Amino acid sequence: MTDALRLARAYLSRVAEPPAGALASFIAEVGPVRAADRVRRGQVPSAVTSQIAARRAEDRAEADLAAVAAVGGRLVVPEDDEWPRWSLNALEIAAAHGLRCGHVPLALWVRGKAELAVLAERAVAVVGSRAASGYGQHVAAEFGHGLADAGVTVVSGAAYGIDGAAHRGAMAAGGPTIAVLACGVDVAYPRGHKGLLDRIAEQGLVVSEYPPGLQPARHRFLTRNRLIAALGEGTVVVEAGRRSGAKNTAASTSALGRVLMAVPGPVTSATSSGCHELLRSGEALAVSSVAEVIESTGRLGVDLVEARRNTEVGLPQGEALRVFEALPLDRGAAPEAIAVESGVDPARVRSLLPQLVQVDLAEEDGAGWKRSHEGTWRGAT
Amino acid sequence: MTDALRLARAYLSRVAEPPAGALASFIAEVGPVRAADRVRRGQVPSAVTSQIAARRAEDRAEADLAAVAAVGGRLVVPEDDEWPRWSLNALEIAAAHGLRCGHVPLALWVRGKAELAVLAERAVAVVGSRAASGYGQHVAAEFGHGLADAGVTVVSGAAYGIDGAAHRGAMAAGGPTIAVLACGVDVAYPRGHKGLLDRIAEQGLVVSEYPPGLQPARHRFLTRNRLIAALGEGTVVVEAGRRSGAKNTAASTSALGRVLMAVPGPVTSATSSGCHELLRSGEALAVSSVAEVIESTGRLGVDLVEARRNTEVGLPQGEALRVFEALPLDRGAAPEAIAVESGVDPARVRSLLPQLVQVDLAEEDGAGWKRSHEGTWRGAT
Repeated sequence: MTDALRLARAYLSRVAEPPAGALASFIAEVGPVRAADRVRRGQVPSAVTSQIAARRAEDRAEADLAAVAAVGGRLVVPEDDEWPRWSLNALEIAAAHGLRCGHVPLALWVRGKAELAVLAERAVAVVGSRAASGYGQHVAAEFGHGLADAGVTVVSGAAYGIDGAAHRGAMAAGGPTIAVLACGVDVAYPRGHKGLLDRIAEQGLVVSEYPPGLQPARHRFLTRNRLIAALGEGTVVVEAGRRSGAKNTAASTSALGRVLMAVPGPVTSATSSGCHELLRSGEALAVSSVAEVIESTGRLGVDLVEARRNTEVGLPQGEALRVFEALPLDRGAAPEAIAVESGVDPARVRSLLPQLVQVDLAEEDGAGWKRSHEGTWRGAT
Repeated sequence: MTDALRLARAYLSRVAEPPAGALASFIAEVGPVRAADRVRRGQVPSAVTSQIAARRAEDRAEADLAAVAAVGGRLVVPEDDEWPRWSLNALEIAAAHGLRCGHVPLALWVRGKAELAVLAERAVAVVGSRAASGYGQHVAAEFGHGLADAGVTVVSGAAYGIDGAAHRGAMAAGGPTIAVLACGVDVAYPRGHKGLLDRIAEQGLVVSEYPPGLQPARHRFLTRNRLIAALGEGTVVVEAGRRSGAKNTAASTSALGRVLMAVPGPVTSATSSGCHELLRSGEALAVSSVAEVIESTGRLGVDLVEARRNTEVGLPQGEALRVFEALPLDRGAAPEAIAVESGVDPARVRSLLPQLVQVDLAEEDGAGWKRSHEGTWRGAT
């Protein structure tokens, strides 16, 4: 890893507005150092020209690296060990299929001490509306907390509402969390989340493909969303209105072949309508708990939700059930009377009664057979 | 329709505890009057013996018919015009496949003035927990109201909680509603719903396969649930805990090839956990509004029926069209074969076939289902 290489990637990261597919291909072809040199001189294939024309004179690589260092950050490049290559592999596959979300970032500006590849190794994205309900924020915080508890990194976008609650929940559990921004990692956006972003950088990582100082823009949020989707093994949409940006992250998640999950909510709540659309269309899997998120994204056989064991008394079936139901509660009845009440053949009643006694559902008194006191059957109708 | 026939069915309805498959087969074979006679004398095939042994001496047919008449009711038998044969056809198909829920009732005790077949023509079941939340009851009432507004009969079980709210919502919109009971139609169960049941009988129908005076029992609720599932084109589970009886109705709905729907709710609410399980497993489709319920249950059946009335052959759409096109011209095929040919889910094929028959586009022969001779479909695709 040479300084020249990192400087080249830093320069290229500012030159082209992501996603810049043609430039990425050019870099893959000639290498980042030569590509940077050729871009500076404007000697690039025609497909790349338009992607670099506006900013190729802006060579601020050294200043940008200094700026990110000043906030405790660095530039992570594909040549680094901590490059999350396994997570971003999905973007490469999508690129090969010509999908819109298929663009591997040229580099990632990262603020915080943790190693990106380590945090991304087991990660789930938790996203949702900024205009979240109390319910949504509660669930996002619970999920964030539970995932962190389970050793899963929570990836989100640091926005108000669901994003913020998910980050906070993860940090409350002492877990790391990754915030992926649509602006420079030294830009506090939204402004009210300056403190939150500082804490995320302390305890986890603030990540962006945009160089320091760059301001957010609507299209950058959409571009950013594919990174959130790629960094998680799956994406949980906690709350989303019908036109929420979270639905864009959801679409990227599906396109990248990641597991898309949605949290149900009250159908009377507009902030859950986007989730319900995703459930109804079958795009998303319903998740009601952290255990279900882990089951849906986890490595097979390792993280399966503990089977819900039925520790209750076995349920009599068919004729046995009918005989049991026909048993009086107070004073025993003759098998013939129980046969009439249950509609079960008397001979069969006589053979079933001892079986019910054996499992403590029936007992005999002087008068006949009745329901056992122990035999309160806790099944539901 | 002779009195003898109705008396015979009334007698048989009390003799055997439903479901009584062997007795039903025996009736189909020798006819209800002869079957009743043979049952009285105990001269029945061995498979039937155990089903009738306990109660065959209880010949209360006249008294039962008088009892139901006293509460403004009657016995509806399969030989009647108002027998809901298209709804119950699903039970016959299920019976032919040996499914547990596949039992056509021997007769139906009905309280109210409306014609059963007319009410069942366009109906949706709305079910859920007795221990419903305020949210669940609100949604059940809204759905009941909206479905009634759209001309859809709301079918439910008259229990506390979701059932009651759905019935009330439908009646508040001036629509008819069907309550299917697990006891005699003259029995007020639950007791607190006596007034509600009276109003349902005024404005719609109270229905049961159990003779007058019969008390509810747990197994009778389970047996009853298949009728709720069969009478609706689909079932909406509004709220259900993990072990709610509504999940039994849900299972019958799927087994009968009806559309199973579930309403999402807060994941923090135990009363929605059964719904979320159904959504997560993919058994149920998420529905958030009456419009979605109507979309899911399809205008298909009604459109076709209306088209038939207008002496126009309706155009099957979507899956119905695919099923129609997959029908053989000469010799009937099994629903499974038609499912493979059409690429439509077998359960959906089984529910669509009776609808195609209803509009003379399909018919059944000994071997299975084929295109009807009348069914030259004059529409363009």
